[in-house]
Amino acid sequence: LSTEELPIGVFDSGMGGLTVLKELCQRLPDEDFIYLGDTARLPYGTKSPQTVHKYSMQAADKLMQMKVKALVIACNTAASFSLDKLATAYHPTPVYGVIEPGAEKACEKVDASGILVLATEGTVSGAAYQRSILSKNPEARIYARACPLWVTLAEQRQQDDHITWNLIEYYLQGFIENGPKTVLLGCTHFPLFSPMIREVLGEAYTVVDSAITTANHVANELELKGLLNSNGGEISFMATDGLGRFSSIGEQFLNTKIVNVSEVDL
Amino acid sequence: LSTEELPIGVFDSGMGGLTVLKELCQRLPDEDFIYLGDTARLPYGTKSPQTVHKYSMQAADKLMQMKVKALVIACNTAASFSLDKLATAYHPTPVYGVIEPGAEKACEKVDASGILVLATEGTVSGAAYQRSILSKNPEARIYARACPLWVTLAEQRQQDDHITWNLIEYYLQGFIENGPKTVLLGCTHFPLFSPMIREVLGEAYTVVDSAITTANHVANELELKGLLNSNGGEISFMATDGLGRFSSIGEQFLNTKIVNVSEVDL
Repeated sequence: LSTEELPIGVFDSGMGGLTVLKELCQRLPDEDFIYLGDTARLPYGTKSPQTVHKYSMQAADKLMQMKVKALVIACNTAASFSLDKLATAYHPTPVYGVIEPGAEKACEKVDASGILVLATEGTVSGAAYQRSILSKNPEARIYARACPLWVTLAEQRQQDDHITWNLIEYYLQGFIENGPKTVLLGCTHFPLFSPMIREVLGEAYTVVDSAITTANHVANELELKGLLNSNGGEISFMATDGLGRFSSIGEQFLNTKIVNVSEVDL
Repeated sequence: LSTEELPIGVFDSGMGGLTVLKELCQRLPDEDFIYLGDTARLPYGTKSPQTVHKYSMQAADKLMQMKVKALVIACNTAASFSLDKLATAYHPTPVYGVIEPGAEKACEKVDASGILVLATEGTVSGAAYQRSILSKNPEARIYARACPLWVTLAEQRQQDDHITWNLIEYYLQGFIENGPKTVLLGCTHFPLFSPMIREVLGEAYTVVDSAITTANHVANELELKGLLNSNGGEISFMATDGLGRFSSIGEQFLNTKIVNVSEVDL
């Protein structure tokens, strides 16, 4: 296979990164993808930078062994702790994270009211979004809130309308009406709630979905590098635990059936 | 050291088991304890039986290497998948789980309305409580509900009253008024919400806390075996990741300061 024909490797702590894969498939329908979810150790969002980095390196190694032309870190926590190190380790294979593209889009949209980053504990305290936004716009007012219950909520088998609305409003408390008008979804689970978040916030707000911005970024970069494929379109899945749960919950994120998942050990 | 003077080893996927340790310390103030929380891989409640068993075995091995006189599996999911195998593997060192003592107490209390087991996804689908209850009372009507958001809620740094009440009521829906009158808290995180659960359910309900029943069971068994210590009272802590988070969140579970946590790798 020539380099262009190789698949793109995508990894995440579990199912959340499937929202990024969904956007990648829509933007790049002729590419092959291999998705790896580290379900045996999810979530990454509450773990330390050292541990998340160790896990990310193991997931990335596994994908590199399978020969991929590019790597996408489809997990905000992992991207925030490991992008630079993985990019150095696998050079010249390009490695893309979800932080930069989201931060860039938010900076295009921002006004004086500022930017609100909604993410996991790890992503908020690691402050990668904050650094990335400030490097592009040193004047930006940045707020960040960890929304841990949204992660669990997204992975519940059934979403009850009443409690979902309560939890959406709960983490947006204090930011409605007078809050920053640009809201960045800095966790791959959160696009599932994007319509509800938009409805709670109202029309004056811009919601930036880092899954969409990442897919656009990866597509543009691969085109620039002459690495686009026109003969693919296959997706294969690997998970480190619970293949049945991965498929059934993952389908809510990917919005299509998940078949042929293989189990791997990292 | 004579066998009686050795510490009791206690392990859990993370902080939840500290509710069991709290009851153990209250019931057995003169014992030494070593607590191990596998924070690098928490939670266990959404993982497969095979993976949970692998992790439990590694945690138990670590404690056995440190010379303990007894092991307590202070995690319902781990106890439900691994108690029998660990008891066989470490015989004659006694291994205690949290399932049997809770099931026994619930069977003492049960009436015709039945028993409601509140637990993690893994504990509910593994059905160890259901089997244990039926082995003692084949006529018992058993209901079980997975409450995944309670686990995340218990590990949030701040508990907002309004959303906590909403989430307590959410998983009890359908069981208030006409539900089973014996309610078994089958996850070590849930004692944190025990007062609220009792208030939502009302006085006609009996809430069985498996942390308390386990502490009583372990105390009785060690006494029967002549393994009680009268010179101890020290607790040491180990965690596999995020020592700061372990201490700060763990204090809510243990209800006392956590100092001197060491990091271990499993």
